[in-house]
Amino acid sequence: MSKNKNKIQRPKARKPRGFEDKSADMLRAENRLVAAAFSVYESYGFEPLQTPAFEYADALGKFLPDDDRPNTGVFALHDDDEQWMALRYDLTAPLARFVAENYNDLPKPYRRYQAGSVWRNEKPGPGRFREFIQCDADSVGAPGAAADAEMVMLAADVMAAAGLDTGQYMVRVNNRKLLDGILESSGVPNTEAGAEQRLQVLRAIDKLDRLGADGVAALLGEGRKDESGDYTDGAKLDVSAIKAVLGFTTASDTDRCETLKTLEALMGTSTQGQAGVAELKLIDDILTACDYGPGHVVFDTSIVRGLGYYTGPVFEAELLADIKDKKGRPVRIGSVGGGGRHDGLVSRFMGQQVPATGYSFGVSRFASALSRMGLVEGAEQAPVMICVFDTSLLGAYFTIARQLRAANIRAEVFVGNGNVGKQLKYADKRGVKLAILMGSDEMERGEVTIKDLELGAEMAKAIKDDKEWRESRPAQKTAARSDIVAAVREMLAHSRKMA
Amino acid sequence: MSKNKNKIQRPKARKPRGFEDKSADMLRAENRLVAAAFSVYESYGFEPLQTPAFEYADALGKFLPDDDRPNTGVFALHDDDEQWMALRYDLTAPLARFVAENYNDLPKPYRRYQAGSVWRNEKPGPGRFREFIQCDADSVGAPGAAADAEMVMLAADVMAAAGLDTGQYMVRVNNRKLLDGILESSGVPNTEAGAEQRLQVLRAIDKLDRLGADGVAALLGEGRKDESGDYTDGAKLDVSAIKAVLGFTTASDTDRCETLKTLEALMGTSTQGQAGVAELKLIDDILTACDYGPGHVVFDTSIVRGLGYYTGPVFEAELLADIKDKKGRPVRIGSVGGGGRHDGLVSRFMGQQVPATGYSFGVSRFASALSRMGLVEGAEQAPVMICVFDTSLLGAYFTIARQLRAANIRAEVFVGNGNVGKQLKYADKRGVKLAILMGSDEMERGEVTIKDLELGAEMAKAIKDDKEWRESRPAQKTAARSDIVAAVREMLAHSRKMA
Repeated sequence: MSKNKNKIQRPKARKPRGFEDKSADMLRAENRLVAAAFSVYESYGFEPLQTPAFEYADALGKFLPDDDRPNTGVFALHDDDEQWMALRYDLTAPLARFVAENYNDLPKPYRRYQAGSVWRNEKPGPGRFREFIQCDADSVGAPGAAADAEMVMLAADVMAAAGLDTGQYMVRVNNRKLLDGILESSGVPNTEAGAEQRLQVLRAIDKLDRLGADGVAALLGEGRKDESGDYTDGAKLDVSAIKAVLGFTTASDTDRCETLKTLEALMGTSTQGQAGVAELKLIDDILTACDYGPGHVVFDTSIVRGLGYYTGPVFEAELLADIKDKKGRPVRIGSVGGGGRHDGLVSRFMGQQVPATGYSFGVSRFASALSRMGLVEGAEQAPVMICVFDTSLLGAYFTIARQLRAANIRAEVFVGNGNVGKQLKYADKRGVKLAILMGSDEMERGEVTIKDLELGAEMAKAIKDDKEWRESRPAQKTAARSDIVAAVREMLAHSRKMA
Repeated sequence: MSKNKNKIQRPKARKPRGFEDKSADMLRAENRLVAAAFSVYESYGFEPLQTPAFEYADALGKFLPDDDRPNTGVFALHDDDEQWMALRYDLTAPLARFVAENYNDLPKPYRRYQAGSVWRNEKPGPGRFREFIQCDADSVGAPGAAADAEMVMLAADVMAAAGLDTGQYMVRVNNRKLLDGILESSGVPNTEAGAEQRLQVLRAIDKLDRLGADGVAALLGEGRKDESGDYTDGAKLDVSAIKAVLGFTTASDTDRCETLKTLEALMGTSTQGQAGVAELKLIDDILTACDYGPGHVVFDTSIVRGLGYYTGPVFEAELLADIKDKKGRPVRIGSVGGGGRHDGLVSRFMGQQVPATGYSFGVSRFASALSRMGLVEGAEQAPVMICVFDTSLLGAYFTIARQLRAANIRAEVFVGNGNVGKQLKYADKRGVKLAILMGSDEMERGEVTIKDLELGAEMAKAIKDDKEWRESRPAQKTAARSDIVAAVREMLAHSRKMA
């Protein structure tokens, strides 16, 4: 019977392409980061919301950051009633649906935070997953730049709550209206018709770090051929417009007041441009009053944010390395989050404008950057293991585990298969520092043996069987059962000091 | 232009059928429950794992609890490479895939916990959602009943960590081997061929509460016609087998030792049955040693658990109401979680047996039951609101918010649209208790006005404009800005006492 069963075709155990199983250490780091962000969001008065994974496809719309790439998309399926449903690709589009659906019942502004998986049906690659976690806060029904200033401070506070010190992060703020002002002055109309051209300009500026001014100039003009020979069509700006755009992207300085003066001059008579400067001025007033100086927040005209839906102030939260560049400025590690004003998202559903602004960060990306910077707290202490010497003493073993847990010490009785040798191999693989052993003799004497596995690791490797092991007794101590919590605490403290 | 835009067909804002948006209070209750469970799982030495939402359909298999219902299923779609992927319907099947895929690298036993959304493509109904959160712990590679005893204690500890007292919950333990023993003695073979018949028997017993002994007897025999005239085919047991099964389901008592004696006699010479009794005996030994008495855990032979994949001990964690039935026993509210031994799940992928046992609870179901029992902690204190009297003072308003947050008091500056009247309506909708007001006069004097909105609610309703409101000054107090944290603390404390 069982031989026949073994011949049955078995499924191959493999996870789908582009998805990941998250390890314990990374999960703990991510959970700590989300908890830190939630505590900041709560302190600002935001309320939690959780929307479902699915939305109807038409309600979700199409606001993907990379919607120019052909293989970009969503995971969609037909529901029973023949409507198309899709898994959310971010947390902003479902928020817009939620606000429109519940508009009359919600307080205005509606301020919510949410963390959760989002899905992108893209070609997977190294470090590029099709499911990842975002963590957002948004104020919906908040028209003024004061709400944007709040988002910038929120982003800075999340960086600090994640454990970063001054100098390890920077929030860089720009305003879409400034670029619109420059383009307006350069003859690119701020209308639906000019939307695609404006997106091309944004994408070109976004490549400034990688391609330099010349490469970006080509992309702003006719187009650019890269090293591989691939040709990217350009935004077709004329020479003076290209010069104006490039001049704008390098107009900022670490001094926010100086930057505002420069921008005010650059924007000239453009209504859009001067409105953008006025918003940044208000943001600067509030940041300065609240002590967010240029060590935490700067204006940076090279920041664009890929998404087409931003309509006003935009910002990015960046990690900085401890090393400095030639000019003595800290080297950028990269953006881990960002946000800005998106006044059009809810009005997609409604007859009225619902101005909104928000902040979002990628949890895995941020957590792994923190880990690369050595800023993730040590992994959880491995549990103390109670070995099973004698199965007739299982009740006593579990009682010991319970006593330790009551004293906030992680503890587990070995519930697998195998003798003490196998049990100690398991303990080694788990990183267990202390093992507790008790046979019937010890049980009668009211004693236990506590073995320091870290100390005894080398010796233990040479040991063949239980008997020899018990006689050699490396790095171990006998304690009264009544005294077990104190004895374990003392040995754990000693072991931590050694680490 | 904008008139034309308004004529554009807008998508309707609605969430897909069978999915829910979770409110702030319910989310906070769920998050607290998951955090409580995680802290128990950690204390037992389990490690966190997060698998992706998707699995390949063949790896997921088909172990749904209600796989006899025609409209039950998963959400599946074709991937680019033409393999079928499906969203996970529980956390156990992905665990089996994970263990099989990483078998050689994992410590044995592998002990993990996980919480996350699962999806069922079922007909939605009231309180029946197509996405919900499960929270699981499993020991894989754990053959003995000691591992099952640990799961039972874990379940009881989660109930206690959720805030339940003795008498408010009960863990009920049974063993599949006992029923197999009864069926074996009654001529139902314990083979693949008898699998469907055994499932019919399990489903019939599961309806004992609802249909009573006569109804279940009909389902164990030829079949049963319900009030609506629908006919359910029976398990076709003969009269003596029906009697044996019904006798078994009522064989348990609140005294665990008595129940074991009764069961030992009932099982007679059945190898399976006696093995089941021996496992329960070991579980009783461990529970008794660790002080889990019949006030927390009983043996209950009417517990079956719907899932076909259980192979040994099974258990349910039930909430009990404060009201008693005629016999003075607490009334059952219902099962919020359960688990048991599932030795076959990983071996689907592998040539070898990988014995495993686990516990799982439905987060929403448990949290809403706690809420019905009045056991959910009060909602988060609403933030203190700083009104915007004068937009030139925004920097000062945000500074006050920052001071309060630094003292662990939630605070927000009003960032919406509207005068102080609208701002106070917003505060009312949010449940804000204190509003802080400061005009330029107060600013110059270094003072703020703190208004107790709870106290002043009735009066505020009659107030027409800011001027009148400022003159009437109901339930409010003037404080020095330097003293603001202490003043707010004092008024919040007073407001809490009133509630």
